[in-house]
Amino acid sequence: MDSSSSCGIKQLQKDCYYEWMSIQAKHIVNLNEALMNQRSNSDDHHKLEELVGIIVNDFQRYAEKRSELSDKSCSNYFAPSWNSSLENSFLWMGGCRPTSFIRVIYALVIYALCGSQTETHISQYFQKVDGSENVDESDGFMSELTGMQLGKINDLHLKVIKKEDKITKKYAIMQEDVADMPIAITAYSRDFVEAGEAVEDAIDKHEEGMAVLMAEADKLRIETLKKIVEVLTPVQAAEFLLAEKRLHVSLHEWGRVREERRFCSASADAVAGAGQSKRSATC
Amino acid sequence: MDSSSSCGIKQLQKDCYYEWMSIQAKHIVNLNEALMNQRSNSDDHHKLEELVGIIVNDFQRYAEKRSELSDKSCSNYFAPSWNSSLENSFLWMGGCRPTSFIRVIYALVIYALCGSQTETHISQYFQKVDGSENVDESDGFMSELTGMQLGKINDLHLKVIKKEDKITKKYAIMQEDVADMPIAITAYSRDFVEAGEAVEDAIDKHEEGMAVLMAEADKLRIETLKKIVEVLTPVQAAEFLLAEKRLHVSLHEWGRVREERRFCSASADAVAGAGQSKRSATC
Repeated sequence: MDSSSSCGIKQLQKDCYYEWMSIQAKHIVNLNEALMNQRSNSDDHHKLEELVGIIVNDFQRYAEKRSELSDKSCSNYFAPSWNSSLENSFLWMGGCRPTSFIRVIYALVIYALCGSQTETHISQYFQKVDGSENVDESDGFMSELTGMQLGKINDLHLKVIKKEDKITKKYAIMQEDVADMPIAITAYSRDFVEAGEAVEDAIDKHEEGMAVLMAEADKLRIETLKKIVEVLTPVQAAEFLLAEKRLHVSLHEWGRVREERRFCSASADAVAGAGQSKRSATC
Repeated sequence: MDSSSSCGIKQLQKDCYYEWMSIQAKHIVNLNEALMNQRSNSDDHHKLEELVGIIVNDFQRYAEKRSELSDKSCSNYFAPSWNSSLENSFLWMGGCRPTSFIRVIYALVIYALCGSQTETHISQYFQKVDGSENVDESDGFMSELTGMQLGKINDLHLKVIKKEDKITKKYAIMQEDVADMPIAITAYSRDFVEAGEAVEDAIDKHEEGMAVLMAEADKLRIETLKKIVEVLTPVQAAEFLLAEKRLHVSLHEWGRVREERRFCSASADAVAGAGQSKRSATC
């Protein structure tokens, strides 16, 4: 192993991320297994409850770990180089949007009730939970979500949107503040002096500010997850966590595969074109 | 030149960015020269006016060019791999915040009036432009900004904040929508089938949506720039553009230098540590 390329803070952050991804892969296996057992022995909720608790705690530990690694280098987390561009485009404050957890629940309910017919509208589901139509219990436990549970999830959604907006606003102010940083002051000076220690200190402070924001966002992610789990039954919570983790892993994988495929087809085009014209070799 | 590594869309986007950076470097030289001439011949505003117009048009052309390159690969612009993490942390919809232009004006005014004493508060400046204190005309043209001009800039600031917020909200909705994408539907399925063409199409659609948002943000950036230039005198506009471009170039450079320095010091630590313990070689 080349020590010079592996010991930077970025590498430690990347290692921490991949460790988290492998923990999530284990979670997926465990959740799958537990849900299968649940189908054959529907009275034993205890094991599922325990597993859900472990998974929420693991997420909290991951957040703590990356917070420890964020000092003066937090900006790496806002668009990690170990993610695909696609994955980064879904990133909010170094992670997923807490509201996206709730959207996963809505989508799961629709999926459980209507299968993968994406043209089915949410209004049809609401007719069902309102009682104007009978609930059709298909293969997902989410089809058993009650109107009261859905109401609580909806209240949570509205609260989380507001909290997300507050953090987004703080980030916007931090971005605007670049105009007042010493790096800017040197840019305004007529002599355009080299930036020095003052700039370095200001950037450190900016990174610290970002770390505070990420920790705040992580707190909201964990808080939202915990509140969702409180509202759901253990079996629903397990189904939700399984879907959420699969989505995360799929997005990571699909982004990577897509980038590789694009790169390969661009390379193939270039090679094919090289035979016809010299120009294509230099684009 | 290795054709396989240079012909992808990402490389074209990167080339477009570096071309823009070299155009900006030329702008800085031209603005500097024009402002020097202005000091010796303060009646000739015509050349400065022309230069400001060219620079705004160049920005518009750059936006058009990268919009052409954003089709199905727009997410690359939201956290470009050719930027440092620091620079990416200031990014908003693939570029700078339009409100940051206005913050540069405020900072320039303060700087022109008070030098680089960052502890000087904006309230002191307002006492000056309100007339409660005499305006001290120091070396920056921005010290000559009138109360009326500042009022117009302030109105513009409020309008731009609202427009920025609208675009930010649209982006948030787009991020939340991931839960309804076919990639998610496959994740919800019990069999966890491989994602296929439907997922690829959905990601293409997502990329197109991002391209629309980036174009909207670019429109707001250009619109804000044009309105600022309308409010300022040609010499003030030139001074503003010079500062804004220097800030952009400095941020790019400083982020790069900082990352290099961090990497070198991490490497040096690793090499030094390797002599003491085997563990440090694998972190």
